[in-house]
Amino acid sequence: MTLYFNLAELLGSRIEQGLYRPGQRLPSVRALSVEHGVSLSTVQQAYRLLEDNGLVSPRPKSGYFVAEDRLLPALPDISRPAQRPVDISQWEQVLELVRATPHPDVIQLGRGMPDVDSPTLKPLLRSLAQISRRMDMPGLYYDNIHGNAHLREQIARLMLDSGCRLGPSDLVVTTGCHEALSCSIRAVCQPGDIVAVDSPSFHGAMQTLKGLGMKALEIPTDPITGISLEALELALEQWPIKLIQITPSCNNPMGYIMPEARKKALLTLAQRYDVAILEDDVYGDLAYTYPRPRTLKSFDDDGRVLLCSSFSKTLAPGLRVGWVAPGRYLERVLHMKYISTGSTACQPQLAVADFIAEGHYQPHLRRMRSQYQRGRDLMCDWVTRYFPPGTRASRPQGGFMLWVELPESFDTLRLNRALLEQGVQIAVGSIFSASGKYRNCLRMNFAARPTAQVEAAVRKVGETALRLLDAERTGG
Amino acid sequence: MTLYFNLAELLGSRIEQGLYRPGQRLPSVRALSVEHGVSLSTVQQAYRLLEDNGLVSPRPKSGYFVAEDRLLPALPDISRPAQRPVDISQWEQVLELVRATPHPDVIQLGRGMPDVDSPTLKPLLRSLAQISRRMDMPGLYYDNIHGNAHLREQIARLMLDSGCRLGPSDLVVTTGCHEALSCSIRAVCQPGDIVAVDSPSFHGAMQTLKGLGMKALEIPTDPITGISLEALELALEQWPIKLIQITPSCNNPMGYIMPEARKKALLTLAQRYDVAILEDDVYGDLAYTYPRPRTLKSFDDDGRVLLCSSFSKTLAPGLRVGWVAPGRYLERVLHMKYISTGSTACQPQLAVADFIAEGHYQPHLRRMRSQYQRGRDLMCDWVTRYFPPGTRASRPQGGFMLWVELPESFDTLRLNRALLEQGVQIAVGSIFSASGKYRNCLRMNFAARPTAQVEAAVRKVGETALRLLDAERTGG
Ligand SMILES: Cc1ncc(COP(=O)(O)O)c(C=O)c1O
Ligand SMILES: Cc1ncc(COP(=O)(O)O)c(C=O)c1O
Repeated sequence: MTLYFNLAELLGSRIEQGLYRPGQRLPSVRALSVEHGVSLSTVQQAYRLLEDNGLVSPRPKSGYFVAEDRLLPALPDISRPAQRPVDISQWEQVLELVRATPHPDVIQLGRGMPDVDSPTLKPLLRSLAQISRRMDMPGLYYDNIHGNAHLREQIARLMLDSGCRLGPSDLVVTTGCHEALSCSIRAVCQPGDIVAVDSPSFHGAMQTLKGLGMKALEIPTDPITGISLEALELALEQWPIKLIQITPSCNNPMGYIMPEARKKALLTLAQRYDVAILEDDVYGDLAYTYPRPRTLKSFDDDGRVLLCSSFSKTLAPGLRVGWVAPGRYLERVLHMKYISTGSTACQPQLAVADFIAEGHYQPHLRRMRSQYQRGRDLMCDWVTRYFPPGTRASRPQGGFMLWVELPESFDTLRLNRALLEQGVQIAVGSIFSASGKYRNCLRMNFAARPTAQVEAAVRKVGETALRLLDAERTGG
Repeated sequence: MTLYFNLAELLGSRIEQGLYRPGQRLPSVRALSVEHGVSLSTVQQAYRLLEDNGLVSPRPKSGYFVAEDRLLPALPDISRPAQRPVDISQWEQVLELVRATPHPDVIQLGRGMPDVDSPTLKPLLRSLAQISRRMDMPGLYYDNIHGNAHLREQIARLMLDSGCRLGPSDLVVTTGCHEALSCSIRAVCQPGDIVAVDSPSFHGAMQTLKGLGMKALEIPTDPITGISLEALELALEQWPIKLIQITPSCNNPMGYIMPEARKKALLTLAQRYDVAILEDDVYGDLAYTYPRPRTLKSFDDDGRVLLCSSFSKTLAPGLRVGWVAPGRYLERVLHMKYISTGSTACQPQLAVADFIAEGHYQPHLRRMRSQYQRGRDLMCDWVTRYFPPGTRASRPQGGFMLWVELPESFDTLRLNRALLEQGVQIAVGSIFSASGKYRNCLRMNFAARPTAQVEAAVRKVGETALRLLDAERTGG
């Protein structure tokens, strides 16, 4: 896959950077083949990938053009967090988000919830029910501390797609990716240690660092290529960093996929400074392209990457089935797992294992990938249409989250409060920063099948933002 | 309940202490009524309770006698751990125990597994299956961070039996009692803090202290009345103890129920020295007497007790449904819960809530209580019959564990290794100590319905111990 994928990435980033403008004709297949020394079919594959991603469109007999049918919001700039280790705040805002019980009168654009209504999930429910009906249900027993062996085999098999060669004994099943993250951090770090993080970054991981007494060092991050390696290297020079915590594939909240070359470079950097990497891959299987992007872990030859994931985003979060491949930290992670929950609920593990083994996982993913990609396109359109002029937005390459940036002075906490009265909840930007930055940003979920109701909710967000901005400008 | 229960406790402890000998006649109902200023029927209730516990037997027309039909092993002495804060060891031994996957060829006498084959559990399986069959299954969603509201209502109702008045919002659902313990410890303590524990003590709690970087101060503990308040007070004088961690009702591993007066005195002590108490009540509902003993929490008037429990011992551990009532530490516990697992698997919560709400919990408990009491009697008989002379054993008042003490020099690690070849596993004593004491002790599970196979396994333990002891004596 690598050749055409790399070429597509290169062309894609040129388009994103504005080197080719919307509507402009792109180099011919033959020209690119000569320029890059690859076959014609490789170039064609690359163009097809870009087409799948909505970046280019073919015109019969005239070649490929930069897609112009959709006006996209401008990209946010590379983030500029405070580049020193800080104590983490924002628990109150996170608590407000996670305390919310699903309620039919509130449209939840804030939470990281996948669509669980897909018919492709039916075999999972069937399997859960079948397991429960058995009186000798193995789900009643304490599980082995590694987790169910059958499930671990299936996970090892799935991870081949990400370039990882793992055996079942390299894996530890956890209660969601949350537990994978906290066990991994505790396996590597002591309280007071400094952890480098991409920024913005998943609030749960940030709160975990807080709760465990670590300091976070937020690294500038590009909305297309991910964490700045240059800034990271400077930070590694300057601070005794113990761990790099990162979501390189289908990042939450920004949705980028770090290019493969940068993934390799990141690993080299980690080796040079001898730090561990926590790779959060919870959205990795939801990349809009297939095969899915490679993990950092797949390039790791000395066991320094702890790969954390779960089925919360691909199947359903209520199952709480996650896992970690902790590399050289396996023994420590096992201890941390044992003390944090003893073992993981069994029945959901068994059901997920059946679901994968019976071949239901890939068809389900296929469907979700294309649903989410359509969701992204619609959400981008709605932001263009309903949000204040000048609003910027991320360009997700996977997953189901859009990151939206409003003018610098804007306060999304106030926006969220105004929205709650209208039955809409968003995730405020400040929870994605250790130090409460990104107050002018917000994250919205586009997992649900798009309905008029969802569109109305997004419209409310945009119009309320506009109203607050106007009030601000007129000093009201 | 208090009057007759207290009287039974008093008489029971006199018997246990040898004030009345086996076969000896006990004071008449009338005499006790006068002596203690209680009604005749109160005394009769007390005697009936003692009879249920196998301590006394009535003889028609002649009154009550100390039961003599069963020869019981002598009680262990009060424990004598090192009375200074220590770093905790023994992870390797614990790992060996929890790594074991259930295997038909190995009789597991070591793990804390209840009997999950009881027909009274059927409605739980039915409910699990019913929930799974629904396509809009709420079990697929992220749960509220407090846990399912319906379940919390049911737990609050159950805890009335232990004297606690709790509302659903006082509770946080956790992934087993394990998570309740680790969240509680982290909510109260910082790494390096000293935690006082009863000794011997549940290995999971001990390993949690280890993993979180705490020091354990093991307090001498009596096999009938529990933690020595005198020793605890001395320790509180001498060391800056942050937390007292204790399993006062149906203790693991010893099975005692701390008398109510001592529970109150413990709480007064904690108030005087202003320390928090972590009360592990995971076996509390399995006391052989009904109503169940009161919790420390029920006497707590300033929110210093964190009450931790789960349905792992009463229903089934594979469900991983636990909970904590953290008192004044609620907010901190919520944060720790969020970072440790995000939320708890939903479907098992819903099924447990249904099971309780539909009235299946108490009948199930009744059945298990009497099964386990019979199990205890048989296990004690087997120890008397098959174990080396001089073997001592605990006198469990609830739960399904027996603590067995062999001569001082004996090494149960060696015993366990010899037994594994014979398809039997026990829990070695050293894991119940922070510092690897109790090497001459072991814990056996008597939850399973007693079969010839189980008896043969216990016999193997006893005879192998005898063989090893003989070899030791003859220097072989
Ligand atoms: C990047 C990232 N990691 C981890 C998690 C937690 O996943 P889980 O629900 O499996 O604990 C989330 C969920 O929001 C996430 O977005
Ligand atoms: C005293 C005690 N507390 C807590 C636990 C852990 O319970 P759970 O399986 O619910 O995590 C056990 C189980 O062995 C136990 O014996």
